[in-house]
Amino acid sequence: MEKVNLLEKFSLFDDYWSPKIVGQLNGQQVKLAKLKGEFVWHHHEAEDELFLVVRGRLVIRLRERDVVLEEGEFFIVPRGVEHQPVAKEQAHVLLFEPQSTLNTGNVRSQHTVENLDAI
Amino acid sequence: MEKVNLLEKFSLFDDYWSPKIVGQLNGQQVKLAKLKGEFVWHHHEAEDELFLVVRGRLVIRLRERDVVLEEGEFFIVPRGVEHQPVAKEQAHVLLFEPQSTLNTGNVRSQHTVENLDAI
Repeated sequence: MEKVNLLEKFSLFDDYWSPKIVGQLNGQQVKLAKLKGEFVWHHHEAEDELFLVVRGRLVIRLRERDVVLEEGEFFIVPRGVEHQPVAKEQAHVLLFEPQSTLNTGNVRSQHTVENLDAI
Repeated sequence: MEKVNLLEKFSLFDDYWSPKIVGQLNGQQVKLAKLKGEFVWHHHEAEDELFLVVRGRLVIRLRERDVVLEEGEFFIVPRGVEHQPVAKEQAHVLLFEPQSTLNTGNVRSQHTVENLDAI
């Protein structure tokens, strides 16, 4: 196991909405993703999902409100809660969630990524 | 659930080596800690432990090498691996680990904190 430098890892990819695995522990994964635009509304049946903004701004739309995350802020979306991540400008985000988590949850769309790269 | 601002949470406490719970998901916890000086050598029997440096510098001594973490870098100490966190100057650190994790692992010392505050 080597240490992970977040900025260095973010420099290794440019595709949006395609999380990369940068760490694994206790059945959970640490992932990095670059987000831009509107993602699909979805929920995760059995997984809580943490979004930590490393750069930029991310809005997590919930059905009853919006959560606006700036750099250095995180939010945990509880399992079963519908959400839509939206980034008006490019945002760099760290995710912490179980290995079993599919990025689009209960929905299949052009954003669905089945097999994530580890970088 | 509300969003969490890391800097704001760090401003709420000043004690060293006393992790505060700032998030819970999937049986795991997100904790924040201020570290300064040398911690006790220990290991965790059944828990992998992630250290992410938010501010300052943290050295994680392993028996065969030192891992030096700067801001924006993380390291995962696998279960069973002896380690000693050392911060020459004050460091602010985010931890991801199972709820069951005791800060001093297999060792009892003056640093052992049994019941963590959630802030």
